[in-house]
Amino acid sequence: MENLQKLINNIILRDTDHLFNTDFLLSWEKSMADVEQVLDIAEALKSLRSHNIATNVFKSGLAISQFRDNSTRTRFSFTSAANLLGLALQDLEEGKSQIAHGETTRETVNMISFLTDIIGIRDDMYLGAGNTYMREVGAALDDGFAQGVLQQRPGIINLQCDIDHPTQSMADLAHLKKYFGSLEALKGKKLAMTWAYSPSYGKPLSVPQGIIGLLTRFGMDVELAYPEGYGLIPDVMETASKQAKETGGSFKVVNSMDEAFKNADIVYPKSWAPYAVMGQRTELLQNNDHEGLKALEQKALANNAKHMDWEADAEKMKLTKNGEALYMHCLPADISGISCEKGEVSADVFEKYRIETYKEAYKPYVIAAMMLSNRFKDPGRVLSELLKKGAKRKV
Amino acid sequence: MENLQKLINNIILRDTDHLFNTDFLLSWEKSMADVEQVLDIAEALKSLRSHNIATNVFKSGLAISQFRDNSTRTRFSFTSAANLLGLALQDLEEGKSQIAHGETTRETVNMISFLTDIIGIRDDMYLGAGNTYMREVGAALDDGFAQGVLQQRPGIINLQCDIDHPTQSMADLAHLKKYFGSLEALKGKKLAMTWAYSPSYGKPLSVPQGIIGLLTRFGMDVELAYPEGYGLIPDVMETASKQAKETGGSFKVVNSMDEAFKNADIVYPKSWAPYAVMGQRTELLQNNDHEGLKALEQKALANNAKHMDWEADAEKMKLTKNGEALYMHCLPADISGISCEKGEVSADVFEKYRIETYKEAYKPYVIAAMMLSNRFKDPGRVLSELLKKGAKRKV
Amino acid sequence: MENLQKLINNIILRDTDHLFNTDFLLSWEKSMADVEQVLDIAEALKSLRSHNIATNVFKSGLAISQFRDNSTRTRFSFTSAANLLGLALQDLEEGKSQIAHGETTRETVNMISFLTDIIGIRDDMYLGAGNTYMREVGAALDDGFAQGVLQQRPGIINLQCDIDHPTQSMADLAHLKKYFGSLEALKGKKLAMTWAYSPSYGKPLSVPQGIIGLLTRFGMDVELAYPEGYGLIPDVMETASKQAKETGGSFKVVNSMDEAFKNADIVYPKSWAPYAVMGQRTELLQNNDHEGLKALEQKALANNAKHMDWEADAEKMKLTKNGEALYMHCLPADISGISCEKGEVSADVFEKYRIETYKEAYKPYVIAAMMLSNRFKDPGRVLSELLKKGAKRKV
Repeated sequence: MENLQKLINNIILRDTDHLFNTDFLLSWEKSMADVEQVLDIAEALKSLRSHNIATNVFKSGLAISQFRDNSTRTRFSFTSAANLLGLALQDLEEGKSQIAHGETTRETVNMISFLTDIIGIRDDMYLGAGNTYMREVGAALDDGFAQGVLQQRPGIINLQCDIDHPTQSMADLAHLKKYFGSLEALKGKKLAMTWAYSPSYGKPLSVPQGIIGLLTRFGMDVELAYPEGYGLIPDVMETASKQAKETGGSFKVVNSMDEAFKNADIVYPKSWAPYAVMGQRTELLQNNDHEGLKALEQKALANNAKHMDWEADAEKMKLTKNGEALYMHCLPADISGISCEKGEVSADVFEKYRIETYKEAYKPYVIAAMMLSNRFKDPGRVLSELLKKGAKRKV
Repeated sequence: MENLQKLINNIILRDTDHLFNTDFLLSWEKSMADVEQVLDIAEALKSLRSHNIATNVFKSGLAISQFRDNSTRTRFSFTSAANLLGLALQDLEEGKSQIAHGETTRETVNMISFLTDIIGIRDDMYLGAGNTYMREVGAALDDGFAQGVLQQRPGIINLQCDIDHPTQSMADLAHLKKYFGSLEALKGKKLAMTWAYSPSYGKPLSVPQGIIGLLTRFGMDVELAYPEGYGLIPDVMETASKQAKETGGSFKVVNSMDEAFKNADIVYPKSWAPYAVMGQRTELLQNNDHEGLKALEQKALANNAKHMDWEADAEKMKLTKNGEALYMHCLPADISGISCEKGEVSADVFEKYRIETYKEAYKPYVIAAMMLSNRFKDPGRVLSELLKKGAKRKV
Repeated sequence: MENLQKLINNIILRDTDHLFNTDFLLSWEKSMADVEQVLDIAEALKSLRSHNIATNVFKSGLAISQFRDNSTRTRFSFTSAANLLGLALQDLEEGKSQIAHGETTRETVNMISFLTDIIGIRDDMYLGAGNTYMREVGAALDDGFAQGVLQQRPGIINLQCDIDHPTQSMADLAHLKKYFGSLEALKGKKLAMTWAYSPSYGKPLSVPQGIIGLLTRFGMDVELAYPEGYGLIPDVMETASKQAKETGGSFKVVNSMDEAFKNADIVYPKSWAPYAVMGQRTELLQNNDHEGLKALEQKALANNAKHMDWEADAEKMKLTKNGEALYMHCLPADISGISCEKGEVSADVFEKYRIETYKEAYKPYVIAAMMLSNRFKDPGRVLSELLKKGAKRKV
């Protein structure tokens, strides 16, 4: 309880209104203070709940989710986060809506937002589209609020787009903070964000981009590794590079998994589609070119197959710092011999770190912290009141 | 706050129990006092929320929605309304239920109603079916309650049927009241409810019917315009005519959009399928006659195409009172050049009134008012207590 | 109110922690005291609600449902139960999740359980699979909790598996208790659990198994009747036989509906697929053998058709005790002339007992009692506090 009080005091001291009424779309648009604030609020919420203290800051209000791609952990984390704060979830299923009838985004957005506090969006399928869509939603909300259509302007949380996956990268960061003891402890640590082989193609770039876009801000040595041709969005790589310089770390691109693993403190082996392939795919999808898509898939899978040795196995793990680097993954991983014949990680390596990856995936509090700081100017004050009130979550 | 107190006092004075425990199926089955009561309760709920006062009158209870047709705004408005009062939403998806197994309506209705306070139903596809189904549901609830199966008898709210769309027409009325300052101000105003061209067919008749069934009760001059053959259900037209006479207004049917627009204070151009076509379609659907349906669609679309000039464009708007009539639509509209090549309204006219149509679409409070007055004998007393208690919606 | 106080006192006296933190998977794994405790808690919750007393024991928390088969009454009962206690429902739809991507059960289970209190599962399609899956979920939860992934270990409620349907059988028992006045009154009563004809095949065995697995514990004479070849899982029949002996009742298998009905106090005529057919079906489904499945269906339906006289009609009802046995069914029933040409029960017999079957189906309180006793060590104390506090469910 004493620690919790201290934590909340820190949140109060740090209280700015930068996060207030501001969408959470790209982690690198947020200041370092904001990033730390979200982590601390998440920790405070977790601590409150573990002390059986209710954190219902809303008596009514909706949190809307729009998933344009499948989701399990993010879906349940978003629902849990909304529920933790007292919001009810309503999913926007486009197939059951009038959206198919040519309704414009700006209209739909206003129609679903009458009594809505938060909108979470996953739109990660098309390069150049997902984040753009979120900003279009934001502009429609701004307009609806300014024009008096909406009583309040709901906040948007990016639940994965083509560029970033901030609820994931922030949960990853929270995990690293806990694992190494503090954010300061990350300084000088080597992180290998590397491509890994998968028997599927078309996986979004948002996870590796989210990782290099966030973790280059803590003085770490971030090494991004991929086979030639599997590059990420150039802009994000530049941002990572710039951030690393500014914080006394480094950002380096290599074309060898072994090199990246060498002496790494943390490895994050994860498959993704090459930037160029994602671009072609987006174009073919927009043109409804099924033949072209099939051909692209064949080509992409054949290309992937040249790099089946990009698997995080026990041999490669031996290359890391004392052979004991922390293995990370956003899950679900393609585990060789378990979820596929040959994949991103060998079964023994995954099993060793399985429980750690489950802990890493614990996103509800990070999302709830994003919600809380979006809706309240002074989340520190709010948390302090919750603690003082001490209402039981479970009688 | 003073205005809110006055408003609530009016509600208390008007408190009758006509709305209590009575389904909201057709607006014209309600007395004028009841209609005004619902509008005032809606306004009071809106005002309470804008003062950040919680309106949770239930600590538990379900609001069930059953959508037999797509919905965005009504779905989200219904969810929001339920949430505003403290009810949780549960959607009845027939495909995931045992209904397909030949279960009877009376059985299903009892099975879903054990701890249910409100059931909202959209069933607007078949002439003669939707409203009938709602009454069948009501009869099953009456029976289940009388026989001791149910602890309470849930109230039904019509979320659009083949005859009426009362949550829409009531929201339209609330919008007109706000736009013109009062219900009294509607007296003598000319409203043009007119058919408009659309490149689709089979749109329900419930919106135009809802409009003429409600807005003929305020001393307005309502002109219903459609191309020959696009008539509405005769009964509803008779009701409209009768109501207009009783309240010192008029109801007239014309076959020209221009004529209806002439000197109108309000225009509501909206496509619908001809009554006769909807009847044939219902029969063909019941007989599973796919060939017949295709032929009917071809014929109906060809018929529509003869009336492409029934578009609310700038020229036609000039015919209205000072060229400045209020344009209304239940949304989504078929906007020429935006959602279709040629549709109900030109892009410039729609854009001019876009924000007004968004405000018009604001249905959560009207629906919440229907819920509240259905569940409480004395909604005025309930609202008064909420105000007095002043619990915060958002801490 | 006095009765309620007495009831709660009984619950307090009986408070053990056997139900606490223990999944509800098979009714016969629970002690008689536990079974009675669940019934009494259900009754107390019902009474509290009928006195308009709120029973929200949670301020936040999720109840997750996973339906691998269609459901209406259980779905709505589960939602209602969760809502009654203050939990929000989140449905796990496997099609919208990453489960299809080869994710392991143990992973999914941890991912959805971060802030979850209860998981309800229906998995009744494959012999040998459903209950096994539930135990796999339970083991994953145990592991996740032990390893510190989860802050709490959610409880599992079996919403129908291949072996048992305990929320149904417990609701059936509650109905019998009410109908006959007490559990003691069941002693010496004859219950006929009999197969009945249906024009469909592949119905789960869980209902008849649930009935003989629970109702042989009250000193009743349970007669299980089916045409030769329609046996149940042998283990369950042995359990039933053993239990009957232990409680001074009897358990007997006969191959004649008439014989079972003779002098019965209660009849439960319900179709199911033969154990052997379900086994073959499971194998064919696992091998994706569509031809084999069609052939099996033809054969099974032809077999069923030999027993069309296994219909509970007025003639057969005359055989029962004074011709007035209580007719039971889990619903929906195959009613001759209503939901099918020829089915499990004649229309007149069903109509006579229709309201009773609706009452029998009232499951929310039984499920809520399972939830409450799973989450609280001392449900009696909790109920007592709710009564004392007396917060209104509906203001």
